[in-house]
Amino acid sequence: MARIWTTTFDRVVDRVKKATGEKKADLVFKNAKYVNLFTDEIVEADIAVCRKHIVGVGKYDGEVEVDCTGKILVPSFIDGHMHLESVMISPRSFRDLAVPHGTCAVIADPHEIANVAGIDGINYILKMTEDLDIHVGIMIPSCVPSTPLDESGAVLDSETIKPLYENERIYGLAEMMNAYGVTHADPECIKKCVDAMNADKLIDGHAPGLTGNMLNAYMTSAVSTDHECSTFEEAREKLERGMWIEIREGTVCRDLDALMKLFEAPYYHRSMLATDDSHPDTIVNIGHIDKIIRQAIKNGADPIHAIKMGSLNAAKHYNLTHMGAIGVGYLANIVILDDLETIKINSCYLNGEKVSEGDQVLKKYTDDYNTLDKNEFKRVYYSFNMNNVKETDFQINVKGKQQRVMEIIPGGVLTKEATFDIIERSGMPYGVDTDRDIVKIAVVERHHATGHIGIGFIKGYGIKQGAIASSIGHDSHNIIVVGTNNKDMAMAVNTVKNNNGGLAIVCDNVLLGDLKLEVAGLMTENDENYVINNIEKLKDIAYFDLGVKRDIDPFMTLAFMQLPVIPELKIIPKGLVKVSTQEVVPAVYD
Amino acid sequence: MARIWTTTFDRVVDRVKKATGEKKADLVFKNAKYVNLFTDEIVEADIAVCRKHIVGVGKYDGEVEVDCTGKILVPSFIDGHMHLESVMISPRSFRDLAVPHGTCAVIADPHEIANVAGIDGINYILKMTEDLDIHVGIMIPSCVPSTPLDESGAVLDSETIKPLYENERIYGLAEMMNAYGVTHADPECIKKCVDAMNADKLIDGHAPGLTGNMLNAYMTSAVSTDHECSTFEEAREKLERGMWIEIREGTVCRDLDALMKLFEAPYYHRSMLATDDSHPDTIVNIGHIDKIIRQAIKNGADPIHAIKMGSLNAAKHYNLTHMGAIGVGYLANIVILDDLETIKINSCYLNGEKVSEGDQVLKKYTDDYNTLDKNEFKRVYYSFNMNNVKETDFQINVKGKQQRVMEIIPGGVLTKEATFDIIERSGMPYGVDTDRDIVKIAVVERHHATGHIGIGFIKGYGIKQGAIASSIGHDSHNIIVVGTNNKDMAMAVNTVKNNNGGLAIVCDNVLLGDLKLEVAGLMTENDENYVINNIEKLKDIAYFDLGVKRDIDPFMTLAFMQLPVIPELKIIPKGLVKVSTQEVVPAVYD
Repeated sequence: MARIWTTTFDRVVDRVKKATGEKKADLVFKNAKYVNLFTDEIVEADIAVCRKHIVGVGKYDGEVEVDCTGKILVPSFIDGHMHLESVMISPRSFRDLAVPHGTCAVIADPHEIANVAGIDGINYILKMTEDLDIHVGIMIPSCVPSTPLDESGAVLDSETIKPLYENERIYGLAEMMNAYGVTHADPECIKKCVDAMNADKLIDGHAPGLTGNMLNAYMTSAVSTDHECSTFEEAREKLERGMWIEIREGTVCRDLDALMKLFEAPYYHRSMLATDDSHPDTIVNIGHIDKIIRQAIKNGADPIHAIKMGSLNAAKHYNLTHMGAIGVGYLANIVILDDLETIKINSCYLNGEKVSEGDQVLKKYTDDYNTLDKNEFKRVYYSFNMNNVKETDFQINVKGKQQRVMEIIPGGVLTKEATFDIIERSGMPYGVDTDRDIVKIAVVERHHATGHIGIGFIKGYGIKQGAIASSIGHDSHNIIVVGTNNKDMAMAVNTVKNNNGGLAIVCDNVLLGDLKLEVAGLMTENDENYVINNIEKLKDIAYFDLGVKRDIDPFMTLAFMQLPVIPELKIIPKGLVKVSTQEVVPAVYD
Repeated sequence: MARIWTTTFDRVVDRVKKATGEKKADLVFKNAKYVNLFTDEIVEADIAVCRKHIVGVGKYDGEVEVDCTGKILVPSFIDGHMHLESVMISPRSFRDLAVPHGTCAVIADPHEIANVAGIDGINYILKMTEDLDIHVGIMIPSCVPSTPLDESGAVLDSETIKPLYENERIYGLAEMMNAYGVTHADPECIKKCVDAMNADKLIDGHAPGLTGNMLNAYMTSAVSTDHECSTFEEAREKLERGMWIEIREGTVCRDLDALMKLFEAPYYHRSMLATDDSHPDTIVNIGHIDKIIRQAIKNGADPIHAIKMGSLNAAKHYNLTHMGAIGVGYLANIVILDDLETIKINSCYLNGEKVSEGDQVLKKYTDDYNTLDKNEFKRVYYSFNMNNVKETDFQINVKGKQQRVMEIIPGGVLTKEATFDIIERSGMPYGVDTDRDIVKIAVVERHHATGHIGIGFIKGYGIKQGAIASSIGHDSHNIIVVGTNNKDMAMAVNTVKNNNGGLAIVCDNVLLGDLKLEVAGLMTENDENYVINNIEKLKDIAYFDLGVKRDIDPFMTLAFMQLPVIPELKIIPKGLVKVSTQEVVPAVYD
């Protein structure tokens, strides 16, 4: 896959001459102590750079010299698995955010945007990351939609995926979430795996808790990684069979503490680091892969092991030739640290160029949608194909004695299915009873103008008045709305729709606040501060004005209520889904 | 490069079903203790195989079950760098020879046959290894001919090499012997490196003693391995900069003892094993990669480290997907050992099939030259394009006072340049003086019918009568002959020529013995016993009948007298070459 890093005759001649010292190097890190990942030790030398590459370690003079006395140099970091969409800003702004944290590459699975905009969404990610100085390798989402029942914006079947492998920046098939399908030889699942194998591509795994012979079956389909291990024993079993383990430590899902033993020999040779999903405030305030390394060291990990897992190991597994180490011929992707304990980043170099100093990124990338074709532009920036909804659309016209309620389990993405007697309350829509914290939840199909609206009830959210709507809803990202009355629900949904995506809070027919996520309803071209500040404001409104419970995140909680593969009761445009049987079940019945 | 291992839908479904246990596995190694190279430890489990692949480790039943109680299973071995031609039998017979030694793959550099037959020679190797059960990856010879001065059978310039990279079994550019050329930016050398880089191929190194900034320059041209280290310090410097080290232990060049520290952490993670050149008797009597592992363990190496270096590490570096380990999804290339101390091989499995039991190979490959096209066939099997030589062709017609003599340094491939006063001896050709052990040496051009014959003198060989000729002469493989008289020299050369290659010993106009190497003058389709027995016989004749000194190998010594890149004085069809200046110098002068 190294064709991405093609070179020319003149460049290599230049490198050779600067390596021998016949010509002065472009840039020399003088008196550098650096972490050598080939010998797992700290080495002292000058490091010479010609254009993008390290051309020598030893004694060198350079046109530009950076005195590294007292500092320690490490290779830049690689995120083995992540979804760019979770950062809620464009991939180009993500780069600006990640670079001061030492990131030089990510393996991204555009799962969310593919659910909204299919191939056009994947092309958006490819095009927006094409010319960046960080390297973005792409894995093709394997499970779009999550189940045949769901109504996503696109379907990525095996025939659609196969031709994408021609692109050399596409490294394979992303997390195969349908472990059941693979291990039970579901034809589409197997076809997707076979096509990836025959195209000489990798397959990432996603198999929490899979063990024994079922794990073998999953791996024999060429799945070679897993980032869902939550115990060392689980990770060990997978690693022992030949899988690479990705320790996932994101904003919400955080497995680092449980997997600290992977930082020890021999495991650290076959493990890497991944964030999976990071919100922008996490990256700004805590960090990206640097954050995982920092925390691992705090937990007692050998810093060199942690750094190797956050760089060379991912480069090796994903065939990122010339990345992941400070070595001759490697790209000059270097992080200058104050020390190996705090991992405080002094400055960062990408491809031989200084890109950040402290918190400050020195060069930013503006968004450039001119590279998109008309279709891509339309599907990404105008991703809402639906009519405005009306108050009456949320009315429940069936009557019954009982109501089926999604009961939130705080801190997780699971729900319980509960049943309550319906008590009609005056001034509240049928079935809503804020006294018992039972309110209405709905999902409005927004990709194909079907007019489908699934309506149900939810408990544990705490909302006392108004409505909250969001276009972030895994995996299909239809509009989800929770509210105490139909009118506010309709207005919140229409606000999100008319903003081309995002969040909206409405109370008594007044829009109290919104966040625009105009890129596929998932991201914005505004910067991270726009996102962080608005979410902060919206949370305050949700908690203080609407009464949402403080023990849940009002938006994250909604984001997983649509996902009909996680127990017990979920909601999609077709209605409430009993996850265990994959049946649509009524919200109201006798 | 895994396209070589393409699969089908039905096969993967079959694998999955046999992994889950829904169907019985084809083959199960029951009660197996095996070396797990992901955790560097010994694990106990049943190992289930479906067709060619390991589909599970755990508890399994199989159609065929092999009780492994008391045995230890390891992955089959990989030779990181070797020349098939040195085994002097066809590549298919090499396979038969290597398999009982646990070899499943070799990275072969067809350097010798390329010097004789160019692309046709490389195609011969490719075609003869295409359908084998061992995997033969090919690196394209980087230095054919060794110097512009030499007269080889072909020239592989960058333009000739570039299109070869389309072949997926060609993994890159073979040992770049012209380290001087690379580090001094010789255009052809750099072009060859650039083309390999841009084709996403690897470049192997060959840089004995290269150090410091010159080593950096060499590596910045993407050279990623070296198999010429003869001290740990040399290896360590290369490894620290990012090179993979191949510990070379062949028949003649043997670096293992000096490099034992590489079997320790952290070095063993970036080191592998290679034989470079093995004669058939070495493989038969001592072994192939198993021999290196065995000796390393005897020397004190951790067996698991040694096995990893002889399997997984090479697979990783050369991207031999699904090879090099016992793991789920890996090819069932398994060696059953009696124990981990003696590495005594009980039996071997390749791609799930038992291929050897003890010394016995269970299935042999016959040679099949029907796959060759007319040109390839002609250039490989009739590689001698020359007229018969005559006695007078070896006559020296210039007179002088002094003669320039190649003086053999026993046990090596170097010569010293010496000068002697010419003493004319009756009954001996001009310049020959067996009393002082000065005899005649000549190289007859045999590729282009140029009639070029280089004539000189050699000392230290010991021959008292007759002549010895050989078509093995690195790198151009012209016919080399040493003798005390012109008539026997001519007859020896003509015998080699008329045999289409090999060795011949003549004395007093009588052919005392020969060895036919009809494949490019380097190999034979006869088996290893033909080669071993005949060489033994010919050595006896050389030592006892002709008087060759016992401290040198009569044929190996001749094999390196043509190589004009190794000091001090060598001989090619153009005459004696002073290696330091690359000048042709006269054998006789005033």
